[in-house]
Amino acid sequence: MDFTLSEDQELIVESFRDLMEKENWEPYFLECDEKHEYPLRWVKELCDLGFDRIMLPEEHGGLGLEQPLVTLMAIYEVLGRYGAPTYLLYQLPGFGTILREGTQEQIDAVMKYVGTGEQIWNSACTEPGAGSDVGGLTTTYQRRNGKIYLNGTKTFITSSKGVKYLVIMCRDADNPDTISEFFVDMSKPGISLSPLPKLGLRMDSCCEVYLDDVELEEKDLFGKEGNGFMRGVSDFNFERWLVGASDYGMALSAFEDSARHAWQRVAFGKPIARFQLNTLKFADMSIKLDCMKNMLYEAAYHADNNNGEVDPGAAAACKYFCANAAFSVVDNAMQIMGGIAVASEHRINRIWRDLRVDRISGGTDEMMILTAGKFAIKPYRP
Amino acid sequence: MDFTLSEDQELIVESFRDLMEKENWEPYFLECDEKHEYPLRWVKELCDLGFDRIMLPEEHGGLGLEQPLVTLMAIYEVLGRYGAPTYLLYQLPGFGTILREGTQEQIDAVMKYVGTGEQIWNSACTEPGAGSDVGGLTTTYQRRNGKIYLNGTKTFITSSKGVKYLVIMCRDADNPDTISEFFVDMSKPGISLSPLPKLGLRMDSCCEVYLDDVELEEKDLFGKEGNGFMRGVSDFNFERWLVGASDYGMALSAFEDSARHAWQRVAFGKPIARFQLNTLKFADMSIKLDCMKNMLYEAAYHADNNNGEVDPGAAAACKYFCANAAFSVVDNAMQIMGGIAVASEHRINRIWRDLRVDRISGGTDEMMILTAGKFAIKPYRP
Amino acid sequence: MDFTLSEDQELIVESFRDLMEKENWEPYFLECDEKHEYPLRWVKELCDLGFDRIMLPEEHGGLGLEQPLVTLMAIYEVLGRYGAPTYLLYQLPGFGTILREGTQEQIDAVMKYVGTGEQIWNSACTEPGAGSDVGGLTTTYQRRNGKIYLNGTKTFITSSKGVKYLVIMCRDADNPDTISEFFVDMSKPGISLSPLPKLGLRMDSCCEVYLDDVELEEKDLFGKEGNGFMRGVSDFNFERWLVGASDYGMALSAFEDSARHAWQRVAFGKPIARFQLNTLKFADMSIKLDCMKNMLYEAAYHADNNNGEVDPGAAAACKYFCANAAFSVVDNAMQIMGGIAVASEHRINRIWRDLRVDRISGGTDEMMILTAGKFAIKPYRP
Amino acid sequence: MDFTLSEDQELIVESFRDLMEKENWEPYFLECDEKHEYPLRWVKELCDLGFDRIMLPEEHGGLGLEQPLVTLMAIYEVLGRYGAPTYLLYQLPGFGTILREGTQEQIDAVMKYVGTGEQIWNSACTEPGAGSDVGGLTTTYQRRNGKIYLNGTKTFITSSKGVKYLVIMCRDADNPDTISEFFVDMSKPGISLSPLPKLGLRMDSCCEVYLDDVELEEKDLFGKEGNGFMRGVSDFNFERWLVGASDYGMALSAFEDSARHAWQRVAFGKPIARFQLNTLKFADMSIKLDCMKNMLYEAAYHADNNNGEVDPGAAAACKYFCANAAFSVVDNAMQIMGGIAVASEHRINRIWRDLRVDRISGGTDEMMILTAGKFAIKPYRP
Repeated sequence: MDFTLSEDQELIVESFRDLMEKENWEPYFLECDEKHEYPLRWVKELCDLGFDRIMLPEEHGGLGLEQPLVTLMAIYEVLGRYGAPTYLLYQLPGFGTILREGTQEQIDAVMKYVGTGEQIWNSACTEPGAGSDVGGLTTTYQRRNGKIYLNGTKTFITSSKGVKYLVIMCRDADNPDTISEFFVDMSKPGISLSPLPKLGLRMDSCCEVYLDDVELEEKDLFGKEGNGFMRGVSDFNFERWLVGASDYGMALSAFEDSARHAWQRVAFGKPIARFQLNTLKFADMSIKLDCMKNMLYEAAYHADNNNGEVDPGAAAACKYFCANAAFSVVDNAMQIMGGIAVASEHRINRIWRDLRVDRISGGTDEMMILTAGKFAIKPYRP
Repeated sequence: MDFTLSEDQELIVESFRDLMEKENWEPYFLECDEKHEYPLRWVKELCDLGFDRIMLPEEHGGLGLEQPLVTLMAIYEVLGRYGAPTYLLYQLPGFGTILREGTQEQIDAVMKYVGTGEQIWNSACTEPGAGSDVGGLTTTYQRRNGKIYLNGTKTFITSSKGVKYLVIMCRDADNPDTISEFFVDMSKPGISLSPLPKLGLRMDSCCEVYLDDVELEEKDLFGKEGNGFMRGVSDFNFERWLVGASDYGMALSAFEDSARHAWQRVAFGKPIARFQLNTLKFADMSIKLDCMKNMLYEAAYHADNNNGEVDPGAAAACKYFCANAAFSVVDNAMQIMGGIAVASEHRINRIWRDLRVDRISGGTDEMMILTAGKFAIKPYRP
Repeated sequence: MDFTLSEDQELIVESFRDLMEKENWEPYFLECDEKHEYPLRWVKELCDLGFDRIMLPEEHGGLGLEQPLVTLMAIYEVLGRYGAPTYLLYQLPGFGTILREGTQEQIDAVMKYVGTGEQIWNSACTEPGAGSDVGGLTTTYQRRNGKIYLNGTKTFITSSKGVKYLVIMCRDADNPDTISEFFVDMSKPGISLSPLPKLGLRMDSCCEVYLDDVELEEKDLFGKEGNGFMRGVSDFNFERWLVGASDYGMALSAFEDSARHAWQRVAFGKPIARFQLNTLKFADMSIKLDCMKNMLYEAAYHADNNNGEVDPGAAAACKYFCANAAFSVVDNAMQIMGGIAVASEHRINRIWRDLRVDRISGGTDEMMILTAGKFAIKPYRP
Repeated sequence: MDFTLSEDQELIVESFRDLMEKENWEPYFLECDEKHEYPLRWVKELCDLGFDRIMLPEEHGGLGLEQPLVTLMAIYEVLGRYGAPTYLLYQLPGFGTILREGTQEQIDAVMKYVGTGEQIWNSACTEPGAGSDVGGLTTTYQRRNGKIYLNGTKTFITSSKGVKYLVIMCRDADNPDTISEFFVDMSKPGISLSPLPKLGLRMDSCCEVYLDDVELEEKDLFGKEGNGFMRGVSDFNFERWLVGASDYGMALSAFEDSARHAWQRVAFGKPIARFQLNTLKFADMSIKLDCMKNMLYEAAYHADNNNGEVDPGAAAACKYFCANAAFSVVDNAMQIMGGIAVASEHRINRIWRDLRVDRISGGTDEMMILTAGKFAIKPYRP
């Protein structure tokens, strides 16, 4: 057993810490959040440090790390500690999907953005009538005159305003049991977007996406026809773990802000750090942080020993536990910070809203519970 | 024992229900919330129904109700059920303070607004260095040349942008142990405001208030000189109970919205109302609502039998329990409503933010816990 | 609205308070608990005060109270406050079932015990393979030669060692869809008992009941043949509410014991009542107690206005909430009492064990949640 | 980072697993628990496998392990998984204290029991008026005629009936500020014991210890005179961590028992494992177990890199979190097991009672919270 990072990992973490230290990014983040803008300048700098090449195979310019997920985890931790919106980064370390499933043309389209920090692609599954249950999908594709036409409405599609491509899940209009995905260039005619007002995660977009006879070619099929649903779920485990990693980092930032505040703020003649009701909060917060940290690193460690595959039970547990524990940590931190937390521009306010969304988006708590619980008792089935 | 409203009370409730039913107020509330505006049109209509005369003595135009607080509670309940921002109304039924403490001039100044629905006055105590602990107060008043001058900074002052008068707590610069209050016309020179960005309760303002040699007369003293602190706390119990009443009503609205949604939303072939994880939420929500309701009505009942004085232990318990239970109810409701709750203009989003603020403003959870706990064990002290 | 007891109710409560005050019952309860004995002497005295005639119709010697359930509630409250094992009393106020369903012979058999304080009857439903789900029932009755023979095993049958009669639910061996009940004299041949070791509720028995060709007559049928299941559930609501009432009373006792202790016990130079971590516990405990109290009285009040019928949703909510809240209160009280709670003969230890059982027996938490949740959202069903 | 055991560690764990597998120890444990007896036969077998030599220096026969605490943790885990009462073993791996503080005579007295499995010694601090606050200590030692006499009462002294020696903390009667410890042979005249009834941990004794002019020699002083308090606390961290390790193991056993039960028990036509309310429990249980496991191993890992010293903050966090999380896990497991859990001899009943005691003994939750919270925010102190 060894609970410490290797020297190489420490060096990488150091470089990201330096990036966060070299300027006070908070005003930039605040502005981007208020304007609902993607903080491209910051993400670009992450990429300059190799962030988006951590999970890439070496032949595509990857860093060739021994423990890529553990390392990624350590980077999320340090970025989060500085209040950075790591929730934006979910796609950057995930080029693997495109490399595994895409055609050469699709791969090229995506890979040319490596290093730019821009939002490149996301997948689109949820519809007004189909959330956790993909079975309710009604968006269709239909072959007509050698072309393929997409029709339907997707909703709550994260990043949809910013990405160049959307991998859209839909049914064959003529064979409704066949669910496939298409790699869709967002500049195509027939696509329109309606941005949704959001409680949190506001540096990213979230839109309803209307598809009105969007014309595609056969080559735009993504992966194997009819394999859409299976392909769609294959990335879930990595993404769920990543949400947990992001939530943990944000909670860490709130904890540290509140701890510093508690030493400075004086009431009834002593720092409020010394009141038992606050000590209780700090004890609970630090325990939750420790639990999150270990759970996330443990899942990363095992994934690194399993071709990068995050265990589905662990992924669900990470998302469920971290989203809730992180929210609780930040909620406690807010309580310690008092008026500053609810009536100022302090980042804890933003973080708190961001975290609430994570209990719903990317797989609801309820879906995570059912998956985590199912996997927990699987070994005991007779 | 009798857990039902009297016929008279039912009739009054009915009139407020009719007001809420006669138009869909939600778009107006949404707009006011987004623009950070006070919904004067709605409050005016409440006053037309006698809302601000419930707690008034009959000689001042009061309604002469047998159980004024129980009735007020029932009104808060029905308003909240329709998602109304009852948090705004805390001052309307509180003319009693002015009538009890004010000079005739001050009384006249305030009473002329009865029935208008406008924001009239509030008290200002909190400072950047003095929150729960009033001992840290540094705002001063000083007599010079027959005038009185106020200097200092107040912060997190609710309604300060909208009210005509502020009752400001400060120390005698020449006798720092003397804490007094002044009835200050907000149009006076030397007063400036800096609005604070707020997480919730956005239809009300919240500002830093800068007092730069604000010139007052002796007649502007509010209450007895040196009695500022005691006067200031005398209204707390009523206000704390009122926060609980407001929180309960908002939670009721979220519960009902989510219950209707759960029957309509279908997943995996059945309404999501039928999933055990949701049934658990509904059981917990309805129990919490019932607990809040009874606790609030019980405190109101006892106050009605005690000259309108809300018991301090009960008031603290109401605020602490209701703010937290209501938040938990709304949080559960959000989870049931899924994407709609976090990425739309649905009122649950607003309510959820509003409720978070109530665990800090008007007396933090921690102060409520200490008061409620202290009163709970008082009878067992040897 | 009126949250107080009537004068008559106060007088009745007074008489039971006097009974509890006139001797220190605790050593007797402790002894009965250790020996697994029913405290007949105490129950007899309750009956002398009319306890078992509260719910009786006047023509059968009932007290003719205006609010029998509210009154019963108030008695449970005062008994519980003195640490009394009210869980034993569930059958005493429930003669109604026999009067409604029984033959004259059965009625006479039961009614002759009114006033004696003895354990008279209970119903037996649960089997090794059928708990919450009655559908799994395998005990049978079969007509042979003009007699009826019972065969099967019942388990977790409360009071089965002490009662004179057991109303046993079983299937017609020749018509398995027909579920009926029989009124069985426990002295009959073919009945044997195997007492189960119990975590709590030890003044009552709990046995496996083996039925080996127990010979009955047609007249021993209880209620209408084939109506066994429906009859069996008809008493549930009253019993569930009663469990809540009992749990509340026990929690009250623990709260008061711990409050007195906290003022007496000194650590670090002050009574432990003054430490914030304990104040938090007391605040939470007293709020939970208040919530339980109101919920129980409210359900009683509505039942008194509805022919004594407890609302099924309210009954489930009472049992679920009170069993859990009471346990939490007692758990907190134990923590305050420290070593005394876990290493002495203090009653809190017994109460804590008793309460744990109540989350399983008489309908599990899970069944209560499903019922309470279902009733909570029923009004919102389109 | 490496979350797996080394091969050597796996081998050691294997040997203890074999011990637990070679017979069904449960009937023996049940009998010992009911009779309040120490299971010497089982502990002896642990010692045959080297259990009590894990923490010993090699020169005293120690095993010379690279990561002794991590290894110990792994053994506690496997023992607990089989429902073993690891709470008994706290002294066995703790010879270090004697070796560090004891005289040669004291060392010899203790070391001769290595390998026997017998209860050897414990320290005695708590008094009727001094629990968490050692300042209230009233037991005294007094020099008279070249001898030393101990007088006073200790209470809640774990193992006091079984150990050969007790290290007793007391004040110099003539210099009350001087707190020292004595190594007392329990067979000496003047010592009497009064066993306390216990809720749990019943295979170990817990007594009041009366010291009536117990005559000692100067050589019986333990450690440096006047250093009693400091010496006393020096072992706390290791012991607190150990309580966490024990609690985790017991919780693991309950989780596995309930998981197996949930697959076997059928209700409403399917295994109860499939009901969402149970899935939720399993998800929460498995997450808590994972959190405990990592927290304990992490603390052990860092201690192994720090001369075996467990960090005080981590120790407090381990005890607080594990005692509570383990209790919650077992409570959930009981709920799943239903009647079997509360009315049978199943070990879960015993484990549940055992765990409750651990939130009080060995340092209350409240003391742990204050320590863990204090250490959590120490780095942020300006």
